[in-house]
Amino acid sequence: MALEAIRYRAGSLQVLNQLLLPHQTVYEEVRSVQDGYDAIKSMKVRGAPAIAIVGCLSLAVELRAGAGGDDPVTFIRESLCRLIAARPTAVNMGRAARELMEFAENESMEKNMEQLRESVIGWIEEMLERDVSDNKKIGNFGAQHILSGVPRDSVTILTHCNTGSLATAGYGTALGVVRSLHALGRLKGVFCTETRPYNQGARLTAYEAVAEGFPATLITDSMAAPAMREKEITAVVVGADRVVANGDTANKVGTYQLAIAAKHHGIPFYVAAPSTSCDLSLESGRDIVIEERPPEELTSINGVPVAAPGIEVWNPAFDVTPHQLITGGIITELGVFLPSELQAALTGRLTAL
Amino acid sequence: MALEAIRYRAGSLQVLNQLLLPHQTVYEEVRSVQDGYDAIKSMKVRGAPAIAIVGCLSLAVELRAGAGGDDPVTFIRESLCRLIAARPTAVNMGRAARELMEFAENESMEKNMEQLRESVIGWIEEMLERDVSDNKKIGNFGAQHILSGVPRDSVTILTHCNTGSLATAGYGTALGVVRSLHALGRLKGVFCTETRPYNQGARLTAYEAVAEGFPATLITDSMAAPAMREKEITAVVVGADRVVANGDTANKVGTYQLAIAAKHHGIPFYVAAPSTSCDLSLESGRDIVIEERPPEELTSINGVPVAAPGIEVWNPAFDVTPHQLITGGIITELGVFLPSELQAALTGRLTAL
Repeated sequence: MALEAIRYRAGSLQVLNQLLLPHQTVYEEVRSVQDGYDAIKSMKVRGAPAIAIVGCLSLAVELRAGAGGDDPVTFIRESLCRLIAARPTAVNMGRAARELMEFAENESMEKNMEQLRESVIGWIEEMLERDVSDNKKIGNFGAQHILSGVPRDSVTILTHCNTGSLATAGYGTALGVVRSLHALGRLKGVFCTETRPYNQGARLTAYEAVAEGFPATLITDSMAAPAMREKEITAVVVGADRVVANGDTANKVGTYQLAIAAKHHGIPFYVAAPSTSCDLSLESGRDIVIEERPPEELTSINGVPVAAPGIEVWNPAFDVTPHQLITGGIITELGVFLPSELQAALTGRLTAL
Repeated sequence: MALEAIRYRAGSLQVLNQLLLPHQTVYEEVRSVQDGYDAIKSMKVRGAPAIAIVGCLSLAVELRAGAGGDDPVTFIRESLCRLIAARPTAVNMGRAARELMEFAENESMEKNMEQLRESVIGWIEEMLERDVSDNKKIGNFGAQHILSGVPRDSVTILTHCNTGSLATAGYGTALGVVRSLHALGRLKGVFCTETRPYNQGARLTAYEAVAEGFPATLITDSMAAPAMREKEITAVVVGADRVVANGDTANKVGTYQLAIAAKHHGIPFYVAAPSTSCDLSLESGRDIVIEERPPEELTSINGVPVAAPGIEVWNPAFDVTPHQLITGGIITELGVFLPSELQAALTGRLTAL
C-alpha cells in the first residue's frame, strides 16, 4: 500500500503536512480553496503534480459544499487564479487551470448550475485518478525496461530528490519505478541521495522508503559516484521538472552530476515523467530558465546557521541534463523512449486523440 | 596575512577552536600534552597535518616548562603514544612520532637532559616551519602551473573540503594554491563545495575565504557540475589524505565525483599534497582502506535530526580518485607531476637526501 499524501473522498480532502515530516505524520483537513492555497503556499504540499491536484481538489470540495451559488463559473475562475498564484512557477497547476476553465465554460453553455458543479467535480476527480494511473504505468514501463536489460534476479536503483507519493497524487514517477520493482520482488536496494540544499531525499524519500519497507540506503549527493563504483547500481532513475523537445531535461539540481557519473560508469540513466511534464514548445535545454533561490537554503538548516557569515552563495534550484546523457530512456505513461524518439512519440499520441 | 589556526611562540601555544567556527573565533591555550590530546580528540583541531603539528607542539611547550625531569626520553615516548591515540587514523601524527622518537633516542646518547630537551624542541619547531614553507611551495608551484595553461588574466578555481590554514600549520595545500593565485592578483573566483556530510567547506573554507577576502562562492556538492558548465572554471584543485604509488588518491568523499565531472568538461583536475602524504608502499587505490563513519553525520546536523528515522545510511569518509582522472597533475613541494611521474620524482628526492 503506497503512502497516502492526499486523502480524498467525495466532499472531503486531507493532506499530509510535509513540513512536519519526517518527525510527525499529521493529516490536515482542506475544506476550501483558501485552505488549498495555504497548504500549497506554505509548502505543506510540494511537487508540481501534487500542487495541481491539491489545488483542484480543494476547489472540488468547496463546489460540493455549494460554493459559487448561482454563478459557479465565476467562482471557479477566481479560485483557479488564486491557486495558480500560490506557487506561480509550478507549471502543472497552470496547465490544469487552463484546461479546467475551458471545460467549465463549455459545460456552462449546456448545463444548469447543479449539473455544471457535478461535471467539474467529476473532471477533477478524474484528474486525480489519471495521475495515479499514469504513474502506475510509468512505474511498470520503467521496471520492465530496466529488468529487460539485466539477467540478474534483482536490481539496485539510485534515485535523487523526492518523486514519490509525496510529490504526486500517489505512487510516484521515478520512485514509482522503484515501487513497481519492489512489488515485483525484484528490488535488491535503492540508494537515495539526500538532495541538498533542501534535503528532499533525506526528509521525504527516506520517509517513504521506511514507511513502505523498501531496502533503502541514504547517501550524500557526493557519494553517488563511489556508490556506482562499489554498490552494483543497475540504473539511475530520476524525475523531471520539464523535458523539452530534444529530450534535454530540467530536474532538481544534482541530476546533471549524477548523469555524468552514470555515463562514466556505464550505468543506464533514466528520466521518469508523465507526458504532461514534456514541453515540446522549447527546442533544447538552453531555452530553460533556471530558478535561483535564496542563499539561506545553503547557509542554514532548520533555521540554524551552518556556513560562515558573509560568504557568497550560488543556489540554482534545478539543472539541465543534456539528452546525450539520458542513456536509459525517458519513461512516460506511454512507454519508454530514447530522447530522440520522444517528440514523435508524443506527437503521435496527440494526433491519435 | 593568512589566517592563523595555530599560534606558537617559544613556550606558548594557542589553537583556534574549530568547533566554534564559523560563529565564534576563539583561541585556546595549550599548556601540556594533555591539552594537545584533548584539542585533537575533541576536534578543536582537525586536518592530518595540523593534528601532527599541534600534537608535537604541545609536547614542545611542556618540555620547555621542564616536563620529563631526569628522563625526558621516557616522557617523550609516553606523550607521543598518547597523542597518536587521540585520532589513530591520522597518518601524519604517527609518522611524526616515529621520526621524532628516533631523533630523541639518538640525541640522548650524546647529550645531557637539558640539551636533549632543546634539540627536541628545535626539531618540532622546524617541523612547524617546514610545513608552512612546503605549503607555500605547493601554492606557488600550483599557481604557476595553472596560470601557464591559460592565456586569460585571471582564473576561477573549484575546490572541495577544507585544505587551508585550518587544516595545516598554515597557508594550506589546495587552498594554498588559491591563496597564491590571490596574492598574484590572478584569482577571479573560487567555488567552495559545502562538503557534506561534515560541511568543512561551508564552515571552514568559507570562513577562511571571508577572513582573507577571497572572491569566493559557496555551492552544494551537487552544483559542481553546473558550475563547471556555466561559471568558466579554470581548474579543480583538491587536497589528499593519501596519494599512492600509481597516483591514485584518497581524499574527502565527493572528490571522485568532482574528478569525473571535471573530465567530462575538459577541466584540469589537480591534487595538492605534500610529499609526506604520498605513500609509495601501496601500489594502487584498491589497497586503500576507506573509513566508514556513523550514520548520524548524515541524519542530523548540529544535533538536530534531518532525515527520516530508521533509514539505513552508507557514510564513507573518503573516496579514491583513480590517477587517470588527475589530468592537471599532483602538486607537491617538489613541483607538479603527472601521476605517472610521481614515483620517480619522489624516489629521486629520497635518493638525493
